[in-house]
Order: sequence, then C-alpha cells, then structure tokens
Amino acid sequence: MSAKPNPEINDGEGEFDLIGRIAKFTSSSQSERESTVLVGIGDDGAVVSSPFGTYILTTDAIVDGVHFRSSDERWFDIGWKCAVSNLSDIAAMGGTPEHALVTLGVPQGSYTETFDELYSGMSAAFEQFGGRIVGGDVVSSPTMFVNLALTGHASKESDGKVAWLSRDAAVPGDLVCVTGPIGSSAGGLEVMLAGDTNPSGQILVDRHFRPTPRINVGRALVAAGAKCAMDISDGLVSDLDKIAKQSNVNIDVEMLEIPLANELIFMFGTSAIELALNGGEDYELVFTASQSVLDRLSDETRESITVIGTVSDSSSDPGHVTVRDENGDAYEPIHKGWDHLDG
Amino acid sequence: MSAKPNPEINDGEGEFDLIGRIAKFTSSSQSERESTVLVGIGDDGAVVSSPFGTYILTTDAIVDGVHFRSSDERWFDIGWKCAVSNLSDIAAMGGTPEHALVTLGVPQGSYTETFDELYSGMSAAFEQFGGRIVGGDVVSSPTMFVNLALTGHASKESDGKVAWLSRDAAVPGDLVCVTGPIGSSAGGLEVMLAGDTNPSGQILVDRHFRPTPRINVGRALVAAGAKCAMDISDGLVSDLDKIAKQSNVNIDVEMLEIPLANELIFMFGTSAIELALNGGEDYELVFTASQSVLDRLSDETRESITVIGTVSDSSSDPGHVTVRDENGDAYEPIHKGWDHLDG
Repeated sequence: MSAKPNPEINDGEGEFDLIGRIAKFTSSSQSERESTVLVGIGDDGAVVSSPFGTYILTTDAIVDGVHFRSSDERWFDIGWKCAVSNLSDIAAMGGTPEHALVTLGVPQGSYTETFDELYSGMSAAFEQFGGRIVGGDVVSSPTMFVNLALTGHASKESDGKVAWLSRDAAVPGDLVCVTGPIGSSAGGLEVMLAGDTNPSGQILVDRHFRPTPRINVGRALVAAGAKCAMDISDGLVSDLDKIAKQSNVNIDVEMLEIPLANELIFMFGTSAIELALNGGEDYELVFTASQSVLDRLSDETRESITVIGTVSDSSSDPGHVTVRDENGDAYEPIHKGWDHLDG
Repeated sequence: MSAKPNPEINDGEGEFDLIGRIAKFTSSSQSERESTVLVGIGDDGAVVSSPFGTYILTTDAIVDGVHFRSSDERWFDIGWKCAVSNLSDIAAMGGTPEHALVTLGVPQGSYTETFDELYSGMSAAFEQFGGRIVGGDVVSSPTMFVNLALTGHASKESDGKVAWLSRDAAVPGDLVCVTGPIGSSAGGLEVMLAGDTNPSGQILVDRHFRPTPRINVGRALVAAGAKCAMDISDGLVSDLDKIAKQSNVNIDVEMLEIPLANELIFMFGTSAIELALNGGEDYELVFTASQSVLDRLSDETRESITVIGTVSDSSSDPGHVTVRDENGDAYEPIHKGWDHLDG
C-alpha cells in the first residue's frame, strides 16, 4: 500500500519527527479518553491516571549494532544500561520505579548464558535503584533486541499533592542545573572504540557501561517544588533544546560551569567540553528551578547539583539554547546531539 | 564471555524453557520484593500491586519475517493484530485494558505511510476494545519490529473483591470451555499462503488478520467467580497443556465438541479439526469453571461459550491433555502447537 513513492523515514524524518506524527495521530483519534493522560507522547515518560491513582509509564529498546554490539559480549553491562535508560526516564519524571516487562528478540543460535548475564545486569540495576522484572515476551528475531517497559508511581509535593517533572515547565528566571559530571559516557565510548587501555580512560568506559539513574534526586526535586526536568540521553544541548522548545523559553548555558570529570579533561583536553555539550547517554538529570526551590533541597542533594545557566525571557523568539564561552560570546557546538534513527 | 561451547538457545531450548530460566532467575534474586507480584512470569500477564491498587501488565512483540511479513504491506492489519495479541492477554486475566506503550524498530528506508497505517490499526483495536497509546520509543533496527506493552486494571468479583484469571487455577470437576470457533486463524493463514481467493477462504483470512480479544467475556468470568483462563495463542492443545501442568490436573477434550467455523469445514474438510487443535493465534479464551459459575453468566455471554471437555482427577499422573474422538479413544494431534522461537 506504500507502493507510490513517498518520503522515506530517514530522508530527513528522524526519530523526533516520527514521534511528532504519532503524537498528532493518537491525540486526534482518541481525544475522548484524553483525560486519563496527564503527560502524553513527547516527554521522558507518560503520566496517566487510572482508577487506582497516578502512575508513570516508559519504554526503551536497544538493538544490536545500533545501541550495543553483541560482539563485545558485555551482556551484564548491556542489561544494566538497558534497565538504567528506563529507570532514568522515571527519575526524569520524579517518580519511583515499580514493575518492568522485558521483551527479548532472540536470533537463531544464541547462547542461554547470554541471557542469564543480560538478566543479571538488568536485575542488578533494579535491585540497586528500585523496580523489578515481573514478566515479558521472548520472540525469534534475525536481529537481537531488548525492549523494556517500566512502570512507576508519581511522587508527592510537600503538601501531599501528586506531582511530576516535565519538559514543558521551565519559566524565565529559573536556574538551569545538572546532576553529576557530563560527557563521561561519550568519552568512554571514544576510549573504547580507540582501544585505549589508560586507567583514566577505563573509568570513562565504566561510566559508559554503568550509568546511574538519578532516582533520588528526581524525587527530591518534586518534593522541593521543582517542575521541569529531563534526563540527558541525546546530549546536553540537544536535550536542553527540547526543554526550550516545549517550555517556550530561551536558555543560556555558561560553558565554563558545566561539570566535567577530571578523567575526561585528562583524556580529551579541550575536546572534553564538546563531549559534554553533545555526547549522549549520560543519564544525568538536567532541570530548571528557582533559587528558592534549590534552597529547599537537602545539603546532600544540593552537593550533587551544579548550576550551569539560566532560563531567560521568552517574549520575542523563544525555543533557543545559547552556550556562552568565557567571554560571554555564543559558542556553536560542532555536532548537535544524537538522533537514535541515525544509529 | 560465551566463547566456550554452550548449548544454544535453539538446540532444544525454545521460548518456554527460556521463560522458565528467566522466571527462576528473577524470583531467586528479588524475593524480598515478591509480595508486590501477585502473578509473575508464566501467565498471560503479570498481576501486580502498587501503592495505588492491583493492575495487570503484559507485553508482546512482533518481528518482520517471524510474526508478519512486511512484504504483504498489510500495515493496518499488522497493527490491529499486535494490539489484539496484547488486549487478549488482558482478557485472559479478566481485566480492563488501560494504557499502551509502543516501541517501533525502524529499518533504514522505511516509509512514513507504513507507520501511519500501523498506528491506525493499533488505535482502531484500542478504540473498539479499550486502552490507548500514551507513549513509546522509536529506534533504528535492521529488522522491523513492533513491541507493545499494555497495562490494565483487575476486575472485581460479585462481592467487590479484586480478582483475576490465571493458568494455575483449574480444579477437577470443572468444565473446559472456549469462546468462538477455533482454528479459523490458522486456516486463514493457510488460505493466504496458498493464494486461494475463494470467498469462504477470505473470511478465514480476515479472522487471521483481524482477531477479536474477548475482553467482555474475561470480565464476565471474573464477576461470575471463574478462576482459570488463558488465551489461545499457541494452539488449543498446547495451551490446554499449560493449564494442565500449571494447575496440576488432567484435562479431557471431546474432539467433536470443539466449535469450528463453517468456512473452516468447507475449506479444509476433515483437516479442519487439526487446525482447531493445533493452529495458533485464534485469540479466543479457553477457561475452566464449575457448572454453577457458568449458570451465573448472562444469556448473552453463555451463548458465546462452548463446553468442550472436563478437568479430571489429578491424583496419579497430572499435567496431561487427552483429546477423545467420537469413540472415546485418545486422538493424537499431528503437530503440538507453536513455539514462537521456531518462527
């Protein structure tokens, strides 16, 4: 039925456009049930109400040759990272992870040991950060893939009201903050691909394979009254751009304030900042909040957070992210984030 | 890490064994959180409790070349069937579908129209039977796949207690029942593969591409006090075998009582019964219940149900399904159900 020549998905239409098409389609056809969906397609997770309360749903898949390489045989790490990419979505909504469903696409000739290790890695991440595997599906597939779907429940503000973090809630005057150092995962990937065995490099490789979802920070942000967050999966600038566009604001980032791991600076020198601006898969949180919200955070949470910029007036031409160098001049990143359809 | 020679998944270890390994693994490592999981791996869906109540989770994936053929370009139908395979799991637990997450694995060069039609088919099934798409993921993949994860809420018995249907609850003395005629989907697949254009054959092809999940029957069964059901996805005998083993009972089926569509008899003659016994993807329900439970069903529900056998004493050697022919002799099916890892 698609015999007539149509624009192909990958001729200029990447993941984000396809998600937009899908969002438009589902919202127009199912508007009468809209009221149960508090946050729909286009955020880290969906927030839905059911007869039993408010919960968060998210799903993330990884595909051999695109998101991991089966030839590396790092099955525990692959399982860990797949779990964390979903846990991080729950963190970005400020929720608590609960129940996971795992779908395995299994090629002919796969080894059972592979899946024991993969599940081991997933389970270890759930043990540490919350959530557990309760079911799934196993299907034959020429290409190995793992899909994880994860539920969570929403947190409460200090007044007991159920609340969550979304990408469209940044307001002018907010400070822009991140957890943890940024760019280490992308640095680790480069180190690994180069075959470098330097110990500092290996610390970055570990960050690439064993990211940490910021579940506790997400919940603390909701409790303190923060409204806007997402996780850094595609790259800091690319992800901030989504906040700017969805919140209809502009965002200024001070390049020198972005926290970098010493190992990243040691291994990459002046290129470290490029990895921090554009590297994906850090699974740290980026959020915006007023100074008074930050003041309500505990010292422990506050210490894990760095202010890197501000949300500015949006009246004229909103939706832009400006990275400023040490002179206050706009800095143009070389590469603008990952689109998962580019692999 | 799997360099040493190990038994391969497909050397004698199919889907069911792999699910068993996974179930064992996750239950041993996470037993302290066991209490939130009311039904775990090994049923149509998982039943879990959260701070907000009892809900049902299920997931099913379809892969190009295994569960559908992209070359057929029946995208609406592929979407419909993917939604129904998940809806049917919720039906088999006696629940009400709520929220769906869709993951698309998208090969290079795919057409956007493909995904519009696919979503159209999924949405149409959700419109008709309940549930809606609230989010998802889009990833690049050499092989096209669609994964759906669906939540639902559990139903209530007549006394208001939350309850569900499971595979392990058949008891001796129960009657064995099915909804709808059986085997039509497998018949439709054969008609299609043979390129037969006979109108009766096309009705079967429609049953193959547009199955109906028995949501209302599932809920009515819970309300009437039934405890044991599953959906027929792998084949009647194969699926009854799972009930017999998980419930620790024996099951006798009267071959002549199995409801067959007239079109199936017309197209396949005496082979129709083989398709009914062993063909997959009917997405009808098979369940066991006492006569008094059946008596509590409404006339309308009762009319959609056929009694095909009995659950017998389990004391000596439980876990077997016997199909009896018109003389009461045991009938040996030629092929014993589908294992999805065999494609």
